[in-house]
Amino acid sequence: MNRVIEYAKRAKAVAGTLAALSPAIKNKALLAIADSLSDQRERILAENRRDLQAAKALVESGRLAESLYRRLKLDEQKISEIVNGFRQVASMEEPVGRTLDATELDEGLELRRVSCPIGVIGVIFESRPDALTQISSLCLKSANPVLLKGGSEAENSNRVLFGIIQEAAAANGIPRDAFALLESREDVNALLKAEGLVDLIIPRGSNALVRFIQQNTTIPVLGHADGLCHIYVDSSADLSQAIEVICDAKIDYPAVCNAVETVLVHKDVARVLLPPLLDRLRTGGVEVRCDTETRSELGLTNTKVATEEDWSTEYCDLILSVRVVESLQEAIDHINRYGSRHTESILTGDLVAWERFFSEVDSAGVFLNASTRFADGFRYGFGAEVGISTSKLHPRGPVGLEGLVTYKYRLTGEGHTAGMYSGPNGRRFKHRKID
Amino acid sequence: MNRVIEYAKRAKAVAGTLAALSPAIKNKALLAIADSLSDQRERILAENRRDLQAAKALVESGRLAESLYRRLKLDEQKISEIVNGFRQVASMEEPVGRTLDATELDEGLELRRVSCPIGVIGVIFESRPDALTQISSLCLKSANPVLLKGGSEAENSNRVLFGIIQEAAAANGIPRDAFALLESREDVNALLKAEGLVDLIIPRGSNALVRFIQQNTTIPVLGHADGLCHIYVDSSADLSQAIEVICDAKIDYPAVCNAVETVLVHKDVARVLLPPLLDRLRTGGVEVRCDTETRSELGLTNTKVATEEDWSTEYCDLILSVRVVESLQEAIDHINRYGSRHTESILTGDLVAWERFFSEVDSAGVFLNASTRFADGFRYGFGAEVGISTSKLHPRGPVGLEGLVTYKYRLTGEGHTAGMYSGPNGRRFKHRKID
Repeated sequence: MNRVIEYAKRAKAVAGTLAALSPAIKNKALLAIADSLSDQRERILAENRRDLQAAKALVESGRLAESLYRRLKLDEQKISEIVNGFRQVASMEEPVGRTLDATELDEGLELRRVSCPIGVIGVIFESRPDALTQISSLCLKSANPVLLKGGSEAENSNRVLFGIIQEAAAANGIPRDAFALLESREDVNALLKAEGLVDLIIPRGSNALVRFIQQNTTIPVLGHADGLCHIYVDSSADLSQAIEVICDAKIDYPAVCNAVETVLVHKDVARVLLPPLLDRLRTGGVEVRCDTETRSELGLTNTKVATEEDWSTEYCDLILSVRVVESLQEAIDHINRYGSRHTESILTGDLVAWERFFSEVDSAGVFLNASTRFADGFRYGFGAEVGISTSKLHPRGPVGLEGLVTYKYRLTGEGHTAGMYSGPNGRRFKHRKID
Repeated sequence: MNRVIEYAKRAKAVAGTLAALSPAIKNKALLAIADSLSDQRERILAENRRDLQAAKALVESGRLAESLYRRLKLDEQKISEIVNGFRQVASMEEPVGRTLDATELDEGLELRRVSCPIGVIGVIFESRPDALTQISSLCLKSANPVLLKGGSEAENSNRVLFGIIQEAAAANGIPRDAFALLESREDVNALLKAEGLVDLIIPRGSNALVRFIQQNTTIPVLGHADGLCHIYVDSSADLSQAIEVICDAKIDYPAVCNAVETVLVHKDVARVLLPPLLDRLRTGGVEVRCDTETRSELGLTNTKVATEEDWSTEYCDLILSVRVVESLQEAIDHINRYGSRHTESILTGDLVAWERFFSEVDSAGVFLNASTRFADGFRYGFGAEVGISTSKLHPRGPVGLEGLVTYKYRLTGEGHTAGMYSGPNGRRFKHRKID
């Protein structure tokens, strides 16, 4: 039997025990893990240096990107952040066992919808060792056993971090099998096929990684392949505000999924807005690609031409495509056709246009007069973020701790049978909401 | 291009329009459909008779089950139920546009989680023409375009019902492309591959149908292949109540997914409970299969022997497997190993045992002292039921109208940028819950 299946079976076997743990035990374990990581920072840094050394050779021979090397690197400050992360998660509100809804069906027969863990979660992440610690803390708090697969470049860092977490947790009443570390590509393939044992897969990494995983498993996947966000400048927008919001959404952090990639501009304001907007973007180092017609009509000879491909491209870089549209409807259609269902913003003073944009745009986040960069678990106030989901069903959008729990129905009776409610003389349900 | 892809594209194109429809327009259309169906009952019955005639030949030659024939049959009363179904759905609470959560992120910057339609839904159902009408009404109310594929035995019935619904809806402001009727097996295969165009698939039919669909698509599937429900009789159960609840859960309607299939009995009460329980079950026509040890120990020579296969079998019939367990833990382990995550009930007077059972049993419904037959959208008070989901993520358990909506995040600002919140002098988020 593949060892992933073995790990997943063992994880599933302790899922019930984990689900029944009190908040106090989970929080005590989280704090103990924080202390243990803090105590062993030298050991962690030493193992990280081994990874860095190997990675350096790969960077020099061009087989590893410089940016991946930077993400791999741990230092004193990063370790402090990791330690604080565990402490923060310990202080967060308990996600398991919350009553979401309650209904009195009849005298003595009460139905409650109660939050509970999802089950075994498989996480696949690249390079960053702090992804391992962050996900581990959130899975422990939400009582989900977790199978962790990190990048091979971070092998030694992941092993030492994993070992410390598992040991400290086990010493504080958490079953060892609540955590497992996967290490090979075959492990990933086995994970994708572990239907019935693994309940959710969370890929954190490149678009290509996420897309590969989505297309090769029937297990639910939490994540997003693309973040192709749009801003639409309506005819009644405050144009100087529009320049600020667009520059923020493009320049503040262009490599992330909530940066804007395409700006749509209503034809009535294009002539006034575009020249100063494009100047500001260029000053910020942004390459602008504009639809052919507008480019020639407005004489925007400084800008490149946007092709069909540009509308479907997440640049993750200081590049922005710009298109002038005839109407709100054309903007909505463009977004629903080319977008990735991540986040879109309309800049307008017209609340009727806003309501239509909100109803008709099919994305996890639909914003009014705000930068797309707000689509983020921390900014939303979730305290932590597991990832951003572009699927339509729950969890959708930025996913915090709440996205790692599901619910079950809790029905308490006093010997009630369905037969009591059948026939002309049967009892009738009350269906009364209770608190 | 396959016509299913064409239908799905057109459905997706009107999804935004549908999502923006006012409750009044949707409800008016639902009532108009009800009237139109009522006015045309003769036509519907005539088309249904054509299907029945063809089906009769199949039943006589043994190629169609008698039970399918019965489900296919419409009569005056069934049509009245269909008509009333549309009127009831019209009177239900509006599911779209509800604010589920609201947070003030900062002055003038408010985040809301708002319910919205899921998108294009593909429904595959067998024989019963009333499945078509029920799903159509719920999809219209929840503003989801729907592609409907019924059984070929009901071809003429489905066509006439579909035509009336689409016409009456179109005459009342609903886009025609919000409904499409699929008819062939190739259509189903195309539907399963329509990722990116179809957002959810709902199979309603045999376990084999559901399993086939779950295993052959990466689109989320709402449904359950099996309903293998358990009742566990704890040592402190009220035994005469236990007999009533078990007989109800097995005999009330054995063909449905929420009937009990396996009863687990704590060893301390087996000797007292089993003889009268088995007598009552036999009186009700139930064949009992018991684990070997208990059968010989208690001299239950009247009962068959339960094999390993019985623990994994959903009988959908007047058959019940019975197993005596050493402990609560053994009962929980049995359920989590053999169960289908549908619904399980513990009969006990011990609230500590109940809490452990509730936390550790991994099923959509976990009940105390109540029949498993309560796992049902109508009994839960949802007003209607789309199906019962055994997936871990939303929607889980009996699914009503609420299961046909998801949510999006609505952020309203006044030109807010992420940059305003960065750096040591940046603004701080408030993250204050609002109503």
